[in-house]
Amino acid sequence: MTTGCFITFEGIDGSGKSTQAKKLAETLRSQGFEVVLTREPGGSEGAEQIRSLVLEGDPDRWSAETEILLFTAARRDHLERTILPAIAAGKVVICDRFADSTRMYQGLSRGDLRALVDKLHSLMIGREPDMTILIDMDPAEGLKRAKSRNTSEERFEDFGEGLQRQMRQGFLELSKEYADRFIVIDGARSQDEVAADVLSHTTNQLKGLAA
Amino acid sequence: MTTGCFITFEGIDGSGKSTQAKKLAETLRSQGFEVVLTREPGGSEGAEQIRSLVLEGDPDRWSAETEILLFTAARRDHLERTILPAIAAGKVVICDRFADSTRMYQGLSRGDLRALVDKLHSLMIGREPDMTILIDMDPAEGLKRAKSRNTSEERFEDFGEGLQRQMRQGFLELSKEYADRFIVIDGARSQDEVAADVLSHTTNQLKGLAA
Repeated sequence: MTTGCFITFEGIDGSGKSTQAKKLAETLRSQGFEVVLTREPGGSEGAEQIRSLVLEGDPDRWSAETEILLFTAARRDHLERTILPAIAAGKVVICDRFADSTRMYQGLSRGDLRALVDKLHSLMIGREPDMTILIDMDPAEGLKRAKSRNTSEERFEDFGEGLQRQMRQGFLELSKEYADRFIVIDGARSQDEVAADVLSHTTNQLKGLAA
Repeated sequence: MTTGCFITFEGIDGSGKSTQAKKLAETLRSQGFEVVLTREPGGSEGAEQIRSLVLEGDPDRWSAETEILLFTAARRDHLERTILPAIAAGKVVICDRFADSTRMYQGLSRGDLRALVDKLHSLMIGREPDMTILIDMDPAEGLKRAKSRNTSEERFEDFGEGLQRQMRQGFLELSKEYADRFIVIDGARSQDEVAADVLSHTTNQLKGLAA
């Protein structure tokens, strides 16, 4: 066994990606893989503290540029402390959101900052996932699901349907831009159907990694 | 009156730069200038919260790269919320440490990261001070002064004399690299002598700015 595998889940709020990330982790564990299930922003002690700083309080407390810097700081810590050590130890890392979310949320929804996000990513992060699973979802349905939850971190979930539609379109375009690592999964089905679809794509990726 | 002026103080710990920044602010105020005295890391509400995150706790809690990102996030917030609005309003902004400190402390003392610091600065900050006053000080003397103070933020002051010597040298080299904005002041004199020297250089810079 050489190194592990880095799989990310992306999608709009309410798409079910967090649920699917958890389901995949459970299934792979039951198959004998060592799995680290993590999330962004956060995923390491320091990054979780940065997460609190960014997500709580007044939505306008940080400019888009400062927010991008804070997310990148959190991602760097998460990568160094959690993701890279696990990959080096041959584990499967499953991460709920990663740099693609910053490309969309900060790069698209808070102004035309995609170029800045990309430059900062290549300077300070560099690493891309081995596989990114985009759970594609109709925004009206996604928003309904997101609103049915209850959380204090509402900043990114208070977007409204128009912006969610823009995000969905953005993620689909991103999946073409990074076609080598993106898998687009139709999220408008039962959880088990979606999970089976996710697993079939993942199994292929994990060939050669000892279970 | 057009725009204000952005003056920074730099130097090793114990060089007396904070004292001199305060003295200059008081003197200029007494001359009728509108002065904003601020400091880094910190200087705005958000940046002060990032400061706490960086400076408190285990010295190894952040890698050098994450630390650079956090300082840059704090600087961006400080610049947007405090420095640029004050300059636009015709005020004199006096700042205790700015990007040059990151060039030295993170760029030099935590590995050879100067190129990374510079790239990140030009991508996310851009702005340089109109004038930078380097209070030059013998490290043995500076260290003695720094240790006589008592603070919970000891990370950067626990460097020892060897590193302080390297920092002093680094700051002197930086003053040549940015010769257009650096003024080097001999800090090994009485506070009043140093302050008079600082003031004489500042007065020139402030010509044309209505007092």
